[in-house]
Amino acid sequence: MKTQGYEIDLENVVKTINKKNYKRIILQLPEGLKTSFVDLIKYIENQTDAEVMVFADPCFGACDLIDSKLENLEADYIIQIGHTPIPALKNFSIPTVFVNASFYVNVDVLIKKVTPLIKGKNVGILSTAQHVDNLDTISDKLVEKQYETFIGKGDSRTAFKGQILGCNFSSAKKIADKVDVFLFVGSGTFHPLGLMLSTKKPVIAYDPYTNELKTKELDDLKDMVLKQRYGAIARSKDAKNYGILIGLKTGQQRIKLSEDLKNLIESKNKKAYMIVVDYFSPIFLEGFSHIDCFVSTACPRIAIDDYLQYKIPIITPVELKILLGKISWDMYEFDEII
Amino acid sequence: MKTQGYEIDLENVVKTINKKNYKRIILQLPEGLKTSFVDLIKYIENQTDAEVMVFADPCFGACDLIDSKLENLEADYIIQIGHTPIPALKNFSIPTVFVNASFYVNVDVLIKKVTPLIKGKNVGILSTAQHVDNLDTISDKLVEKQYETFIGKGDSRTAFKGQILGCNFSSAKKIADKVDVFLFVGSGTFHPLGLMLSTKKPVIAYDPYTNELKTKELDDLKDMVLKQRYGAIARSKDAKNYGILIGLKTGQQRIKLSEDLKNLIESKNKKAYMIVVDYFSPIFLEGFSHIDCFVSTACPRIAIDDYLQYKIPIITPVELKILLGKISWDMYEFDEII
Repeated sequence: MKTQGYEIDLENVVKTINKKNYKRIILQLPEGLKTSFVDLIKYIENQTDAEVMVFADPCFGACDLIDSKLENLEADYIIQIGHTPIPALKNFSIPTVFVNASFYVNVDVLIKKVTPLIKGKNVGILSTAQHVDNLDTISDKLVEKQYETFIGKGDSRTAFKGQILGCNFSSAKKIADKVDVFLFVGSGTFHPLGLMLSTKKPVIAYDPYTNELKTKELDDLKDMVLKQRYGAIARSKDAKNYGILIGLKTGQQRIKLSEDLKNLIESKNKKAYMIVVDYFSPIFLEGFSHIDCFVSTACPRIAIDDYLQYKIPIITPVELKILLGKISWDMYEFDEII
Repeated sequence: MKTQGYEIDLENVVKTINKKNYKRIILQLPEGLKTSFVDLIKYIENQTDAEVMVFADPCFGACDLIDSKLENLEADYIIQIGHTPIPALKNFSIPTVFVNASFYVNVDVLIKKVTPLIKGKNVGILSTAQHVDNLDTISDKLVEKQYETFIGKGDSRTAFKGQILGCNFSSAKKIADKVDVFLFVGSGTFHPLGLMLSTKKPVIAYDPYTNELKTKELDDLKDMVLKQRYGAIARSKDAKNYGILIGLKTGQQRIKLSEDLKNLIESKNKKAYMIVVDYFSPIFLEGFSHIDCFVSTACPRIAIDDYLQYKIPIITPVELKILLGKISWDMYEFDEII
């Protein structure tokens, strides 16, 4: 079916529901698709005997699994729209299917806007879930224009060739040595910024929703974010009490890393407390007034995207290592979940 | 141990941890005790071999169980501070203990302030978890002064005699016929307001933190809340699309009720959608722009306490029945989970 310009393939989902005779379905949507929930429910309910309930909490990625939360609800099936599965995460207590929401990219416009900016011959092509379908077409058109293209396959957190996540740039890193420049196709600035910091290569970012390039925006953002990160580390210089944040989302739990960071902090004669978080919100952390610095081992984006909302600095594990002198600022990278 | 004026008995908890050789403990705190988390962790860690992790998300009551959320964390034991167990909720996947935080009540001051207001002879005495320890002493002093006192035992959601919850006034209702007036000992206005509306009896509310009565405040609040509730129902008069909110907190799931409400709405030729919610926040519901009126089957306080935050009205199941003409406004009561 089509909604808000997205193509969402629910045909197979309907087939599965009918074949397995599922009765209670939970629909998990990203914020942008919530307004379409009635259309999605109708599509499924009209073709099956199932009752569809929609899940209201925000879903930021395929790491955001809800099977363990639904225990008493007697749900038969969870449909998560808008994300691709993380192959490393399996074993759901309730069968869970991931249905991508593909957004059409006008490849001719893209090629016209992008090619004048490409310096060099070798181009790495990357995207987020919504646009990965288009990468082969983009590659073909670039090859026609005498470029050599590279589409890397990331580690077991990414489902598709050329896909990057906000917390995983492995498909880029794998081909970084071979390319002169990366072409990122997608909205937002977080992904291309992480790409720049992870690979140290130039990045051309093309937004298929607006058909615009984001080069200037991205350079400004890079300066601002690096200043903020430097500031967060500087503000934590005299921190004595650390709060290590452990996220509960299935795909974001890094307990071993948390323990390692605790040991590192305590080896410097500082104190570390382990703080488990289900739903991140600045206000819930404010009560822990004893803490001078939070280190987030959950979603890498929390520390960076929500910087201004937190009164006490939140830093990433990479930044903690800089703060405690284990690595130098020159080695700064975005935190990733590998 | 003592913190912030509360007496928290952790001795038995320490004994259990040592006896069972528990290694990883999760500490769940109400917002007001978060600032004491270091003292609580130290008290336990100094006397055991366990590592204590603190849970950051707010905990509003014993209905807020987290055992099913902690599956991958290999936690051995959950300590929930500040609430008494809900006897009806058992079968934890991780052993969970509830440790009350008792706050001392100056009973002599209470008696002096309260007795001039008592009209009649028969007094029902009620409190929240923090102060239930004091009810027998209060009763004795009132009996000395020739009053007859009643302390009711509620249904299986309350642990102690005379205890009420924000969502359960059964210990009051049981004795309502026998009493002329209720004496409520506790902070806040929600509980005594619910008490007034549930029992239709006069309520004297005494706050042991400030040693003040709240009679005037309570009357004003009652008028305001009833106006708001009337307004929420009136605003939903033309609603065609209802969202029935099903809370995921273990003690707040009322799936059968949700199904009944859906049938009721559909019998009036209106449409009802089932919306599952883990963490309630006005912003997460705003995406469901198709909905004209939400009906919350989760915590009864959400619709009432957070009234002003929601753009689309949220009503309780009782209020839906008024809206759809099943019962009259004269039968208005706070929603309860029985």
